[in-house]
Amino acid sequence: MEERSIFHCLSPLDHRYYLANRNLFDQLTGYLSEEASIQYCIKVEIALLKSHVNLSMKGRPDLLSALDSVEASVSPSEVYEEEEKTQHNIRALVNVLKRKVPEETAPYVHLGATSVDILDTAQSMRMRDAVRNVIIPTLLKVEEELVRLCRDNAEVPQVGRTHGQHAVPITFGFAMAEYASRLGKSIIQINRLAGDLRGKIAGAVGSYNSTALLTSDPEGFEAEILESLGLKPSETATQMVEPEYLLRLLLEINVAFGILANLADDLRHLQRSEINEVRELFKSEQVGSSTMPQKRNPWNSEHVKSLWKAFAPRVMTFFMDQISEHQRDLSNSASMRFIADYLAGFAAAAARSLKVLKSLHVNAAQMMKNIHSSGDLVLAEAAYILLAAAGESEAHEIIKQLTLRCEKEGISLATAIKDNSAVSELVSRSLKAVGLPEAELFFARQEQYRGAAVKKAREIADRYEGIQDFLKEDK
Amino acid sequence: MEERSIFHCLSPLDHRYYLANRNLFDQLTGYLSEEASIQYCIKVEIALLKSHVNLSMKGRPDLLSALDSVEASVSPSEVYEEEEKTQHNIRALVNVLKRKVPEETAPYVHLGATSVDILDTAQSMRMRDAVRNVIIPTLLKVEEELVRLCRDNAEVPQVGRTHGQHAVPITFGFAMAEYASRLGKSIIQINRLAGDLRGKIAGAVGSYNSTALLTSDPEGFEAEILESLGLKPSETATQMVEPEYLLRLLLEINVAFGILANLADDLRHLQRSEINEVRELFKSEQVGSSTMPQKRNPWNSEHVKSLWKAFAPRVMTFFMDQISEHQRDLSNSASMRFIADYLAGFAAAAARSLKVLKSLHVNAAQMMKNIHSSGDLVLAEAAYILLAAAGESEAHEIIKQLTLRCEKEGISLATAIKDNSAVSELVSRSLKAVGLPEAELFFARQEQYRGAAVKKAREIADRYEGIQDFLKEDK
Amino acid sequence: MEERSIFHCLSPLDHRYYLANRNLFDQLTGYLSEEASIQYCIKVEIALLKSHVNLSMKGRPDLLSALDSVEASVSPSEVYEEEEKTQHNIRALVNVLKRKVPEETAPYVHLGATSVDILDTAQSMRMRDAVRNVIIPTLLKVEEELVRLCRDNAEVPQVGRTHGQHAVPITFGFAMAEYASRLGKSIIQINRLAGDLRGKIAGAVGSYNSTALLTSDPEGFEAEILESLGLKPSETATQMVEPEYLLRLLLEINVAFGILANLADDLRHLQRSEINEVRELFKSEQVGSSTMPQKRNPWNSEHVKSLWKAFAPRVMTFFMDQISEHQRDLSNSASMRFIADYLAGFAAAAARSLKVLKSLHVNAAQMMKNIHSSGDLVLAEAAYILLAAAGESEAHEIIKQLTLRCEKEGISLATAIKDNSAVSELVSRSLKAVGLPEAELFFARQEQYRGAAVKKAREIADRYEGIQDFLKEDK
Amino acid sequence: MEERSIFHCLSPLDHRYYLANRNLFDQLTGYLSEEASIQYCIKVEIALLKSHVNLSMKGRPDLLSALDSVEASVSPSEVYEEEEKTQHNIRALVNVLKRKVPEETAPYVHLGATSVDILDTAQSMRMRDAVRNVIIPTLLKVEEELVRLCRDNAEVPQVGRTHGQHAVPITFGFAMAEYASRLGKSIIQINRLAGDLRGKIAGAVGSYNSTALLTSDPEGFEAEILESLGLKPSETATQMVEPEYLLRLLLEINVAFGILANLADDLRHLQRSEINEVRELFKSEQVGSSTMPQKRNPWNSEHVKSLWKAFAPRVMTFFMDQISEHQRDLSNSASMRFIADYLAGFAAAAARSLKVLKSLHVNAAQMMKNIHSSGDLVLAEAAYILLAAAGESEAHEIIKQLTLRCEKEGISLATAIKDNSAVSELVSRSLKAVGLPEAELFFARQEQYRGAAVKKAREIADRYEGIQDFLKEDK
Repeated sequence: MEERSIFHCLSPLDHRYYLANRNLFDQLTGYLSEEASIQYCIKVEIALLKSHVNLSMKGRPDLLSALDSVEASVSPSEVYEEEEKTQHNIRALVNVLKRKVPEETAPYVHLGATSVDILDTAQSMRMRDAVRNVIIPTLLKVEEELVRLCRDNAEVPQVGRTHGQHAVPITFGFAMAEYASRLGKSIIQINRLAGDLRGKIAGAVGSYNSTALLTSDPEGFEAEILESLGLKPSETATQMVEPEYLLRLLLEINVAFGILANLADDLRHLQRSEINEVRELFKSEQVGSSTMPQKRNPWNSEHVKSLWKAFAPRVMTFFMDQISEHQRDLSNSASMRFIADYLAGFAAAAARSLKVLKSLHVNAAQMMKNIHSSGDLVLAEAAYILLAAAGESEAHEIIKQLTLRCEKEGISLATAIKDNSAVSELVSRSLKAVGLPEAELFFARQEQYRGAAVKKAREIADRYEGIQDFLKEDK
Repeated sequence: MEERSIFHCLSPLDHRYYLANRNLFDQLTGYLSEEASIQYCIKVEIALLKSHVNLSMKGRPDLLSALDSVEASVSPSEVYEEEEKTQHNIRALVNVLKRKVPEETAPYVHLGATSVDILDTAQSMRMRDAVRNVIIPTLLKVEEELVRLCRDNAEVPQVGRTHGQHAVPITFGFAMAEYASRLGKSIIQINRLAGDLRGKIAGAVGSYNSTALLTSDPEGFEAEILESLGLKPSETATQMVEPEYLLRLLLEINVAFGILANLADDLRHLQRSEINEVRELFKSEQVGSSTMPQKRNPWNSEHVKSLWKAFAPRVMTFFMDQISEHQRDLSNSASMRFIADYLAGFAAAAARSLKVLKSLHVNAAQMMKNIHSSGDLVLAEAAYILLAAAGESEAHEIIKQLTLRCEKEGISLATAIKDNSAVSELVSRSLKAVGLPEAELFFARQEQYRGAAVKKAREIADRYEGIQDFLKEDK
Repeated sequence: MEERSIFHCLSPLDHRYYLANRNLFDQLTGYLSEEASIQYCIKVEIALLKSHVNLSMKGRPDLLSALDSVEASVSPSEVYEEEEKTQHNIRALVNVLKRKVPEETAPYVHLGATSVDILDTAQSMRMRDAVRNVIIPTLLKVEEELVRLCRDNAEVPQVGRTHGQHAVPITFGFAMAEYASRLGKSIIQINRLAGDLRGKIAGAVGSYNSTALLTSDPEGFEAEILESLGLKPSETATQMVEPEYLLRLLLEINVAFGILANLADDLRHLQRSEINEVRELFKSEQVGSSTMPQKRNPWNSEHVKSLWKAFAPRVMTFFMDQISEHQRDLSNSASMRFIADYLAGFAAAAARSLKVLKSLHVNAAQMMKNIHSSGDLVLAEAAYILLAAAGESEAHEIIKQLTLRCEKEGISLATAIKDNSAVSELVSRSLKAVGLPEAELFFARQEQYRGAAVKKAREIADRYEGIQDFLKEDK
Repeated sequence: MEERSIFHCLSPLDHRYYLANRNLFDQLTGYLSEEASIQYCIKVEIALLKSHVNLSMKGRPDLLSALDSVEASVSPSEVYEEEEKTQHNIRALVNVLKRKVPEETAPYVHLGATSVDILDTAQSMRMRDAVRNVIIPTLLKVEEELVRLCRDNAEVPQVGRTHGQHAVPITFGFAMAEYASRLGKSIIQINRLAGDLRGKIAGAVGSYNSTALLTSDPEGFEAEILESLGLKPSETATQMVEPEYLLRLLLEINVAFGILANLADDLRHLQRSEINEVRELFKSEQVGSSTMPQKRNPWNSEHVKSLWKAFAPRVMTFFMDQISEHQRDLSNSASMRFIADYLAGFAAAAARSLKVLKSLHVNAAQMMKNIHSSGDLVLAEAAYILLAAAGESEAHEIIKQLTLRCEKEGISLATAIKDNSAVSELVSRSLKAVGLPEAELFFARQEQYRGAAVKKAREIADRYEGIQDFLKEDK
């Protein structure tokens, strides 16, 4: 088997990001590498051959058990050597297999199948297994951290921000609840779609021409093979399985990628020098900048965002690969091989997100300080609501004018309201009506104006702590 | 209301494609135009105001019924004039509404809501209605034509093509079944996702700060409003509804777009001069080329493909709009307005596909001629299968060598087989074993080698004739 | 001419963004609307016809001057009515023109041309004119504001930021110089590429079959027509002009779009509540939020970013339109019509950038405050350089440890250095060597550590103030 | 140095496409691998250090020559080990280098530079060298084949096709001339842009803060270093070189990619069973299909198209990487590493195009047969031109009606014209006027109606045979 220094590889996935994600990528290798691809093709060929044994050789147990050991006996190098002659990867594999299987079964190797029957079926299995065995477990760990942050910080006040401007207070747990909820739902979809990938043993153009020569029930023959591999058949096929089963899975993974990128952006910005509300772990021997010794950069969050930039646009390829002329052209063959890259890139982003969240330092004191840095202007909304609820139709405009006065004169909103007896009276009346503290106290504790933030944070934490239950339903 | 010549519009959707799709686009105008956008916002504002009347004014029926007539009384121009002052579209609308509603309800207009509560809720309604009332009905007509073509041509022989090369025979109905199945499944998904869009009345940053000042059950208050509009609330929200509900709908529409584009490509190529198996309608007064009087071009199919090129890449915008900093930045505001363009572009492609399919001329004679143009080489697979089934392990290679001889000497495969007594005998034995006609006849009727094509075509036609039943389940 | 309420239009470009950019879009209408498209096609047809008059009718001046008035006499509606019959837009135009031109020239209308000769040539003219007459003038105004900001703020200290973290000081003028330089260079490229678009009068498949029947020098015939329209011929053509001339122009415009988006992002973030270094104009009657009366949002910068999200991905369409089978398929026809939308979207973004820059409030005091908010840690680099320059090989690590001590103990870097006599002595020695003030003063005036920022800001301002000169070279 | 089986790699570039392009990819490894990346960074660090020696140690020749051997003494593994501690790749490299250089120069290693000075400068060098030393030579070989096909087939008649329909005749050499011209121009642009990449030694935020502590002419210091590396400085910089220099190069490469994909599509379709005008080489031991022994697929052309699908959409990443907040965020770091993949994918497509062209079988007999398969209807344009040139204003409509009659009655256009004495007379008059053979002969030799096809094919061949001269101008 040909060996090379990883530092000679061209794709960062096979050198730098391999080293940064060694354990994770070693797992993925079992599904996404060329070796894995060949092994899964062998699984499909053997399943097909066993069905032939059942069909034409009365299911001889000796043959069936002999076939079990074939997969382990084939090396990728053998197949590649044969391919140099055939210039055709599956015919090469078939030639190799015919030398390994019991002689009387050799004529039946691959019989009735077209290459894509094997490749597409193997691909569905590989994608399903990579997603369910590697990607979803990684995402569930990210989800677990989000749930933890959500619960632990359910009551930690933070200012809500829209347009980068202070809006009204929330809690940091509530901010994290957004991600627990969005990512949680996406995990559930990914799991469902990974479980609905399809196989196909329907021949050259999907119409069972070849297997109909061998059996009167070619669809049953296909179903039996696929069932042994844990798959259902495609509803219709050309030479290929309908592209949409896999496409929808990849799109949903890109949806999850967008959620991770959004989270990464939020964490990046919360680490800005002036905001400083959270901080990625920084070890004392670590270097932030090669020239600025004081720097502590949010480079892991930046990395996740950057991976999103690298991989999210690849959905265009997935959409282009939907189109294949007539019963197929081959123009999706090379392009679909890069789905392996895409999944590895996504897995790396999920793993990095996990690393960030696991050791995220939450600076509750700074969050409180930031809320108060805008004085009580973040309560302008509350003032307007209270004023309107007391029947003042121009409440929004009145309070806006007061806030402009505040800015000009550098006074607090509470003061501006107090100075205006009409407004002051109506606000006080409303405060009393809803059982809130009186104005002075109300405007001094901005962080208490947070609506259902705490309750929502806890509810979401509870719901997604049990995400495993949702997944089981789909298995 | 400002009027302009459509020929002064900048977007082709508002001049050329408006004229080409006038009836369809007039329907879409009811959901996607700026006028529609304002009207739906009014619907949401009125629903909110009614809940305020219920909450704070004991649900006075006189007020509630007075509010019913407000929507009709507002013109977009009024709102735009007000916006010149406010520089804020929803505050402009609110100011206009306050002049139209019963005076005692005026303070409650928009109270507790943030602009995006109104905009996102209205958007979910508009998207749902545009999709369910215009897009799905159009797609169902396309599906109906596909089902018809599938059924009517279930037995019409056509050569299956892979890599643009003759592969093995199918039927034209089977080829259409692929599209009936793929599009049918996508319609079902579109319908489901359009029915799962969400609304939101949760305030500035999604935590119900404002409405919690007005009611002890702000989530119930939200649910009541949304229910009256036929929507469920978002599970969590920032200033916006979680982006993924709408994103998934748009992605599925792009999936359907890809299916239409694939169909269009197939039809384009089947109209090539040398292939000539189908033909778009061409009227005698029509001109195919301004300089070549004989030309009859597949321009409608080309148009569908071209619209796909124009619109499919816009999914990148949809994915980029997933990302919004903290409780939101506004950087998705302009970009999401162009979803209207996207839906119009898709609808135009569906309508054009319908036009093509409705009047498609199927040239069965030419299809038969094309099958036979490759002689009996399209039965090379059958020969190999029959040979292998008789126990010959090198069957594929043997037949391949025979086909090379056929090409070199210009003889038929039947002849080449006949010349080789070993092969000939085994093939004949297999033919007999499966009850097929003897070799001479078998190799003369290539079109009979079609596996389950006829059966599949009919099954798919039956299944998708009943697509309405699947849709009902999701309503 | 058909009139419609703009509020019934589907594309935001034809309602909301038309109203927001009325003057600009009215200018674009002259090049990008359907009316303009037809008028430019007439220009090309008339130029062709005049060449026929010269070739076959001895250039009769009466005919030539009669042809000058034809363009004004044709309305789009007439052409569209004719197209209902022909189903072919250029043949419809030709039929209309034949009724308008002097009778003896009627047989020569369009003679020798294929539709795409007219359409592609007209398109090159329209793109050239829209870019040179509308887009570049708008960009030059943006550039002028950047140069002004660059010059006016050349000495205004601002902290440089990398990873969102304070790095080392610069000046705000230097920060703007980046954009003046990047945008300036892009304007020069856009101008050059707009001047290199090509026309074509080479017939159905680009090989001059038809015109070679009429003249022995068909390439000369083409060149004469194109020269009268200000264009050069395509080097080779199929039915279409080579796609790359226009493609490169569009790509460069997308490059400029990215620069505007980057600027917008910077301005958005500098307006964050905690940073507050610049501010978009906010009028007192304006509303920032429909529920939070105090809000002043950077919505114009957000708008520019959002337009970028909407339009930048459309380059994928431009790249897909490069591919056309054989001498052309029509699958680029609909998609290329949306170049009009793209240019309008870009123009809107440029105009909005201009608005932001023109009234941008620069808060120099806050910039100074932000520099000092990190204490003297932004001088850690300087300390390391000074220490190393004195021969200390471990300078970076030593200073990094000191910064960690600063963070832990809350002391300044100056103090930490002073406490370490070895370091202190070497730093002082270096300061003296390069003629800088002594340590105490040096570390108290962080903003003076700004390298060549001032000089570069001024140089860039000078260079791009003269950008018009660069453009003239390319005319 | 860590070794791994290539079959364990995740990216197809590092297993399947490595094996398929071993020689080419081995060359790319010298510029694009992680090892190469580190080596180029060392080149930059050493150049910087030499300038320090010149500046501060009077350019001691012993030190300068000692530095020459450093590059060869560093292994990637060493650097990666150090990075485990620093978590910072360039600081790790610096630490390693400090152990290798003469002791008195150690304090000056990296002094004044920020990591990105090194990385971006090294990247510009690597991109320039990979493009000029590997990519352009490969493209020039493709161009050479196109020129050969163009010249050799300048007179080989082929039918021109628009919309997949027979249009009017051309020659196959003319069809290839399109690609020689388009690709040739793109090669010239790629070469120019690769020669205009920029370097940068301007410190943390591009304002020379650090180097201004060491020299009074920091820009001169930068220029000297860069000149020794064959680069010019960026006009302005943030932490990074302005992104547009590299962006424009990558966009132009994507332009060339589109040209290759278009060529591949044409070749695919010309190999359709029904068209059969060209054929990729197929060796007798090769297998076309694992189940259909007769198949000869255009899989190499399909492969090129598929690579285009995989890589062309990545331009979206390049455009997204234009945007970096303030003096930079790191969110382009991971994404830009994949430029290596992009270039490898493009190189693979170019190499495969070369393989196809080199052994392309041109079937001139079939081309002639296809022209004649439409009878003389491909001369309908000629008939219309001749008729119009004789003064008939309704010529197009008249001939169109004749073609409809031809189709209906199955007669030739020549016959239909002959039957119509008015038309016949005018056509004959025109034929005579331009010195063409009389009608009977003219309509029997469709392939002679080819305009300037032969002349253009030869001119383009001549021009691009000399492409090397154009490239030299840009060196």
